[in-house]
Amino acid sequence: MKLHEMWQGYPQVADELAQTLRLMEKSIQLKNKQVEQAIMEMIHSGGKLLRPAYQLLFAQFGPDRDSQKAVSMAASIEMLHTATLIHDDIVDDADLRRGLPTIRSSFGNDAAVYAGDYLFVCCFKLLADYASSMRSLQLNSRSMEKILGGELGQMDNRYKINGTIDDYLDNISGKTAELFSMSCSIGAYESGCSELFSNNAGKIGRKIGLAFQIIDDILDYTQPADMIGKPVLEDVRQGVYSLPLLYALKTNRAAFIPYLEKRENMTDADTQKVYELVHQYDGVTQAQALAAKYTNEAIRAIQKLPQNEADTRGQLERLTRTILDRQN
Amino acid sequence: MKLHEMWQGYPQVADELAQTLRLMEKSIQLKNKQVEQAIMEMIHSGGKLLRPAYQLLFAQFGPDRDSQKAVSMAASIEMLHTATLIHDDIVDDADLRRGLPTIRSSFGNDAAVYAGDYLFVCCFKLLADYASSMRSLQLNSRSMEKILGGELGQMDNRYKINGTIDDYLDNISGKTAELFSMSCSIGAYESGCSELFSNNAGKIGRKIGLAFQIIDDILDYTQPADMIGKPVLEDVRQGVYSLPLLYALKTNRAAFIPYLEKRENMTDADTQKVYELVHQYDGVTQAQALAAKYTNEAIRAIQKLPQNEADTRGQLERLTRTILDRQN
Repeated sequence: MKLHEMWQGYPQVADELAQTLRLMEKSIQLKNKQVEQAIMEMIHSGGKLLRPAYQLLFAQFGPDRDSQKAVSMAASIEMLHTATLIHDDIVDDADLRRGLPTIRSSFGNDAAVYAGDYLFVCCFKLLADYASSMRSLQLNSRSMEKILGGELGQMDNRYKINGTIDDYLDNISGKTAELFSMSCSIGAYESGCSELFSNNAGKIGRKIGLAFQIIDDILDYTQPADMIGKPVLEDVRQGVYSLPLLYALKTNRAAFIPYLEKRENMTDADTQKVYELVHQYDGVTQAQALAAKYTNEAIRAIQKLPQNEADTRGQLERLTRTILDRQN
Repeated sequence: MKLHEMWQGYPQVADELAQTLRLMEKSIQLKNKQVEQAIMEMIHSGGKLLRPAYQLLFAQFGPDRDSQKAVSMAASIEMLHTATLIHDDIVDDADLRRGLPTIRSSFGNDAAVYAGDYLFVCCFKLLADYASSMRSLQLNSRSMEKILGGELGQMDNRYKINGTIDDYLDNISGKTAELFSMSCSIGAYESGCSELFSNNAGKIGRKIGLAFQIIDDILDYTQPADMIGKPVLEDVRQGVYSLPLLYALKTNRAAFIPYLEKRENMTDADTQKVYELVHQYDGVTQAQALAAKYTNEAIRAIQKLPQNEADTRGQLERLTRTILDRQN
């Protein structure tokens, strides 16, 4: 069990994240030991555990903080996230994630479908066992609905050369930002914060999630292919057009059409050309500006949070600056 | 919106099942209208709605019966069932279900993965909105865990020529019987019956589910292929060995080995031969005897239920006899 090195500067979070991983391990019990093992390896493959970390940090604000409950909620959120990753890898036909073979590539789509489903149910089980109220479960289930609706929305926009920035933001709101938002708001709410405070926490989480996803999408256009596990620009071939491309398309749609209209038949040379055009028409810099806007809004809202003994506000600011300034 | 004709003899159930379908429709709201439409068609494709029906009938026993709540629970159970069917069709590469194209065949595995996930979440949302207590959700989540664990267990047993009857019963306990069991117990529990009564309801549901699945598996060996949507014996080629085959294997394993060891390369002639051997070695009659045993146990337990004004006990007996005597 190894935790990502970034948590060295956050001792309480690091301790609780280690407990979170242990609880996830304990909760996953399958007769199919091969698939169980594959899920375990995925859990320990060095994901940063950002969503549970935000959840644990926001749980420091409430009067009723209960470390065991906070850890259970964190485990449930990370399981939900892992379930969506396993299913995303089916949809993307992905062979690698974080440098390891995906469950679908090792065991086939069948096992990956059920393994994801099983983790959804484990998430639900942990929520039902540890959440303090039906209200909290209701809020959670609405977030989960938005997350899955977002995945389907993204599919609907495939190969849309006229897709708008708003469509994109809508989709990443559902797909990524909602889970960050839910992590922050559930952390606050379950530790006894008011619904008002928890909603505000959720809004901060949403900004962080939006910036996080935009930066993720920018990295596709700024990283050499061997730096990240997932093949760069594979998305473009599959018709998923992210923010840098959408900005560049807005500037000069005609330049892209000869390449994009080939759809799944785009060659490596075509994607290379798209890559260059995105830079040429300032797609990356415009996307960076929007990410910076959301990051700054999140930081300003964090700075307005109440101060406490653990300096949670300071930790949140530091963490948020770190992850939104990442180069990989 | 058409209800299966079998419900004509159960006016209250028929009325509440129609409401159940309407609530399911209302709860499913996707931006991706094509996928939304496909889910709607699946819901209205003439499934018998047995699980919600048992749920609604057992809800007639409690002192606190609330029709709206009973309908919501019924919708949530049918959504869970539909989610597993959509995902099963991915795993089985199925093109047809109930004579209609499957979601995976119309929209691809991608849409089917997310559509199933979305329905899981809708199920969870309805439960969280209408269940009366955290206890009830906890019981539900344990059932759901068994159901998904059962699916993965089935995969683990593929191509196992030495698979035992116990393994088979274990798997169908998880895969099918648990959802029937959950339907009956949640119906009772949510209408205010005691946990003892609800557990007994769950046990009745389990027997019904076991008999139901065994009969389903027998039908693969007794029906001409054009009578059912799913290709007969396709399971055998995929390594899923059901009860009639397991019984026949026990009698004369050597007779089957030359065919089964070809695994996915079995020809139509091979599966035809397996079909004949299963009959020759009494696989079907032995499976029928076991189904009859579970059916009789369920009927006897139903006859011991308390009598009430609506004659729920009588309705349950009639329904159970009908579905466990089916030829298709």
